[in-house]
Amino acid sequence: MKEIQGGVCAPLGFKAAGIHCGIRKNKSKKDLALIVSDVMCHATSTYTLNKVKGAPIVVTKQHLQNGEAKAIICNSGNANTCNPDGEDIANAVCHLCAEALKIDVNDIIVASTGVIGQPLSIQPFEKHMQELVNSLDYQKSSDACEGIMTTDTVKKEYAVEFEIDNKICHIGAIAKGSGMIHPHMATMLAFVTTDVAISKDMLNEVVHEVVDDTFNMVSVDGDTSTNDMLSVMANGLAQNNEIIQKDKNYQIFKQALMFICTSLSKAIAKDGEGATKLLTCQVINAQSVNDAKVIAKSVITSSLFKAAMFGRDANWGRILCAIGYSEANYDVNKIEVSLASTQGQICVCQNGRGYPFSEEKALEILSEDEIEIFINLYDGDFQATAWGCDLTYDYVKINGDYRT
Amino acid sequence: MKEIQGGVCAPLGFKAAGIHCGIRKNKSKKDLALIVSDVMCHATSTYTLNKVKGAPIVVTKQHLQNGEAKAIICNSGNANTCNPDGEDIANAVCHLCAEALKIDVNDIIVASTGVIGQPLSIQPFEKHMQELVNSLDYQKSSDACEGIMTTDTVKKEYAVEFEIDNKICHIGAIAKGSGMIHPHMATMLAFVTTDVAISKDMLNEVVHEVVDDTFNMVSVDGDTSTNDMLSVMANGLAQNNEIIQKDKNYQIFKQALMFICTSLSKAIAKDGEGATKLLTCQVINAQSVNDAKVIAKSVITSSLFKAAMFGRDANWGRILCAIGYSEANYDVNKIEVSLASTQGQICVCQNGRGYPFSEEKALEILSEDEIEIFINLYDGDFQATAWGCDLTYDYVKINGDYRT
Repeated sequence: MKEIQGGVCAPLGFKAAGIHCGIRKNKSKKDLALIVSDVMCHATSTYTLNKVKGAPIVVTKQHLQNGEAKAIICNSGNANTCNPDGEDIANAVCHLCAEALKIDVNDIIVASTGVIGQPLSIQPFEKHMQELVNSLDYQKSSDACEGIMTTDTVKKEYAVEFEIDNKICHIGAIAKGSGMIHPHMATMLAFVTTDVAISKDMLNEVVHEVVDDTFNMVSVDGDTSTNDMLSVMANGLAQNNEIIQKDKNYQIFKQALMFICTSLSKAIAKDGEGATKLLTCQVINAQSVNDAKVIAKSVITSSLFKAAMFGRDANWGRILCAIGYSEANYDVNKIEVSLASTQGQICVCQNGRGYPFSEEKALEILSEDEIEIFINLYDGDFQATAWGCDLTYDYVKINGDYRT
Repeated sequence: MKEIQGGVCAPLGFKAAGIHCGIRKNKSKKDLALIVSDVMCHATSTYTLNKVKGAPIVVTKQHLQNGEAKAIICNSGNANTCNPDGEDIANAVCHLCAEALKIDVNDIIVASTGVIGQPLSIQPFEKHMQELVNSLDYQKSSDACEGIMTTDTVKKEYAVEFEIDNKICHIGAIAKGSGMIHPHMATMLAFVTTDVAISKDMLNEVVHEVVDDTFNMVSVDGDTSTNDMLSVMANGLAQNNEIIQKDKNYQIFKQALMFICTSLSKAIAKDGEGATKLLTCQVINAQSVNDAKVIAKSVITSSLFKAAMFGRDANWGRILCAIGYSEANYDVNKIEVSLASTQGQICVCQNGRGYPFSEEKALEILSEDEIEIFINLYDGDFQATAWGCDLTYDYVKINGDYRT
């Protein structure tokens, strides 16, 4: 497997486009994205478990009942959530898109991201749908990626190439993150394309397996979004024998998808609103995978620990505190904690007690922009990794006045 | 019932003291507090459910097994948590205190608050215990209150007077809060004194009833402290007939204790680290008390909503989002949300959808320093209230470099 360029257009037969249609006031910001497959795809999505759901999620669920799709349309600048006419608007967007693409309306995945509770007008879509479709191109993944960004500061776009049955296969993806990021059995917005042939059942299975270990292990601010969604479209153009069971080929595909989703998850954590540092917390030797996950997420979710990382302060007591209030099983007196970066690694806690370390070395390690927290529980054989970011002045600034 | 001055010294027979003994570097900050009853008290505590517990909590639990105590000693500047010799130090502090007071070591409640995982020397206690005991006075509640403060900016001290059996009764209290505040079936540090005669069982019962509706409904930053503790000492000097069942007198006492604990809870939320605003979220017409509590806490814990309040931004979508990811039962399509302060009240959401409001009026309302969020679920008969604060630059500043 090797990493390649091209994002969602890296797999065979996928075009993309991104334009400014007027939902966002700033004309230099794209706010509408489209991804289209030349042929019908097996498709699946995972959705936010927030009970307050964006209208596009309701419509997409209906459209994906048959497990097939040909296109994804997504706007930024407005979440189309908590609006009285939200579903009507989402349906109208799909109709406009289906008409322009000359495909069935039920084969469209629709998504929105932005402010909650502000009416979304259909006018910008009416006015610019043909322009959007006309600009579709096999090279324009980046435009689509820009079209779904909100407070994101960097594009999150990945692709890999690998082989199944001696056929060259690809997976590509784009995602947006930044704030309101605390996926709960679902994810922020991420769109994945692949030319691999895989049955609907197997596609659904592998996506859920991978999402649990990637997107669901990210937190920027503990707030699970109303519009979280990951959608995957597989068009089979790689011409491998269709994956219909959990065999070797399923594992190859899963490994590639895991790489893509892990890369996106880390990119989303690192580009969290106001963030200056990516925090990776790896918990090993836990009694169960769930114990490891709960502890890793508790640490990277702690506001106090996140603020300490911003301040380059090796305040490991806050790590112990966050482990302590997590609902996990472990023996406090066995916990070992280390902090690491490209500047080296120091142990700060052993047997649940402070372990002497050089504050100077700690400052050196914590001055890097990617920090790893290793927690060894010495209590079992299971492990998990979670990704987060520091809590900064800019997070407060960005969210103190988001709507204006 | 009327509010009075005097804090923990308002009830008959309680002396207090607070001094600087050298645990904190800043000599103008008191760091050691003592509260002593002239006679033996019925006493109880609630403790943090954080599995990583401060050493003083382990020692206090042992001392309170018989439900009796005469004194509370508490230092600030060091939490005495995750230290290899933590329990030895906590025991040594109790022994020094017992010797100076000439009381049984088992009648001492001990507490610590401050940085986690830094060794606590016994020397400052040895050197200053006699000075502390010598300065005990029936008027020095405020000194004790200063002695337990960490990043608190205001003293949290309350007292009330009321009647039981025609006897004048009192409850007094001091507390510290500020950061790492997210009580979980326990509380931050709070010390309550009363001269009411009440049995051990009834005291234990009423304290747990009240704490569930007061301290456990506060959050500053979602981080449950390792050293949370509420201790109550009742010395019976008011000479009412001892309360031994849940009768009218129990209710009078409960009402007074509820007032004290509610006042402290609001004071702690309002003085949360970096906070500029007290947020009070009242949820009414829920299917159960638990549903109401879960929703109220979810709203006041949301980083996004807290940052919006700092920015005086009526971004009610974040309230709906926080309701949505809470694990409560309700009908999304019935939710009504209003925002209020001394500047008036506006409805921002009805039937789970946006309700038109004046942004100008909203800004006026949100410019005040006490904001109320009313959530009517129209789905049952139960209610709950939670208290929190806004998320500000100063929270990040304070916690970005707490240890230096």
